[in-house]
Amino acid sequence: MLSKNKIKYLRSLKLKKFRQKYNNFVVEGEKIVLEMLKSQAVEIENIICSENWAHEFEHILHPFQAQILLAKPQELAQISSLKTAPEVLIIAQQLSSADTIQAKDGLSLYLDRIQDPGNFGTILRIADWFGIKNVFCSTDSADLYNPKVIQATMGAFLRVKVCKIAFDSLKAGHPQLPVYGTVLEGENVFKTRLSENGLIVIGSEGKGIAPEIRKHITQPIAIPAHPDGGAESLNAAVATGIVCATFRNFHTQKQANV
Amino acid sequence: MLSKNKIKYLRSLKLKKFRQKYNNFVVEGEKIVLEMLKSQAVEIENIICSENWAHEFEHILHPFQAQILLAKPQELAQISSLKTAPEVLIIAQQLSSADTIQAKDGLSLYLDRIQDPGNFGTILRIADWFGIKNVFCSTDSADLYNPKVIQATMGAFLRVKVCKIAFDSLKAGHPQLPVYGTVLEGENVFKTRLSENGLIVIGSEGKGIAPEIRKHITQPIAIPAHPDGGAESLNAAVATGIVCATFRNFHTQKQANV
Repeated sequence: MLSKNKIKYLRSLKLKKFRQKYNNFVVEGEKIVLEMLKSQAVEIENIICSENWAHEFEHILHPFQAQILLAKPQELAQISSLKTAPEVLIIAQQLSSADTIQAKDGLSLYLDRIQDPGNFGTILRIADWFGIKNVFCSTDSADLYNPKVIQATMGAFLRVKVCKIAFDSLKAGHPQLPVYGTVLEGENVFKTRLSENGLIVIGSEGKGIAPEIRKHITQPIAIPAHPDGGAESLNAAVATGIVCATFRNFHTQKQANV
Repeated sequence: MLSKNKIKYLRSLKLKKFRQKYNNFVVEGEKIVLEMLKSQAVEIENIICSENWAHEFEHILHPFQAQILLAKPQELAQISSLKTAPEVLIIAQQLSSADTIQAKDGLSLYLDRIQDPGNFGTILRIADWFGIKNVFCSTDSADLYNPKVIQATMGAFLRVKVCKIAFDSLKAGHPQLPVYGTVLEGENVFKTRLSENGLIVIGSEGKGIAPEIRKHITQPIAIPAHPDGGAESLNAAVATGIVCATFRNFHTQKQANV
């Protein structure tokens, strides 16, 4: 029941250049769509769903009547980026670039050339779990609005602010900020005194942290491998999770000991 | 320079039924291929590579002359499961099912219906980093030889033993083994006394740990969210990384305090 042009347009949004041209993006699946409709954090352009779905969620869809487009299962399959086409997807406007966010309070992350969309999205989900509100990333990182990034966040993009910025510019605005970075020769993160404010730099999947960023690290940290271990490294998102958990636990324990 | 039949055969190995029929699997990319050739942990059926690659690594390929098949770039692209076709890939025999591996010594993992190949492979890489030698998984978990699993392991499948087994059968053989499991209402893992031997159960991405396995958990654990956090859960591989790191750190600190 969608026009050919509409399907073509929707399919085009899989590509960054069209998402930038139209300043929007696609979110798929019931769980994340319901969360978006409730959060009101983003402007909804269209809700595309099966007739059944529209009927089942009539009460929630009520304020969005003008944006609903009904689609047949085969049309949903044509548009979807998922293996199994969902019953509902949303086209939403991209959030305005969060250029006013600050790194001075609490913990923030800086992602240096994280390229894998799954890793990028998973890291935003980690930030959301550990109450990290701001994630900065290098200008050549994955696109936040890539469908795989959005799906991997499991909705975290609604709560965590993301800002693309060169490391030098960020650092210039916060010259006193402690900068942590995971490097092979860093100090065992479990034995490091971790501050409550700071920027944690996560290096790219294949190349680690760029030399020009590395020189700004005030506290190099590392996750120790087991002596019987064989892997050369950990996945970037997994390393981020371990480091964030360790920061949060360090301060919880400190508070408990006061 | 590959025959049409060979290309068809190689492409068929993307599907589990053909990998099972021929009892083999495909590994792509220079880094992991070189590791495999050195490790001698698996039987190599064929090395398929560009002429340039064969020339550059002549010294390493020497013992494998009979298995080398040269391929043109467009042929490599036809066979590859990767976005960017590699210069080399290997067809290797599947390892015999590691039915003799035991959970009684040290730490092991049990993966309950981990379906996402990226998560499955990343968890094996985590096990490898933290020196966990045995990973058990439910019979309906992802296929170890799925190309996405193999690539995500970054070579860990050469060192970590994987065994598909129903939880009941595994437990019956080790009735005294402590069983840890991540559940929402579990004890803060950072405050839990963690044993040196034990089985850590990781639940499926959407559904967590199945009720019939849950009742065998002797120590429910949880990774505490930050009070300001918004995410409902962590990614399964990220949670595994945090739990494994915490187990290893608990015993390192204990040893340091003796």
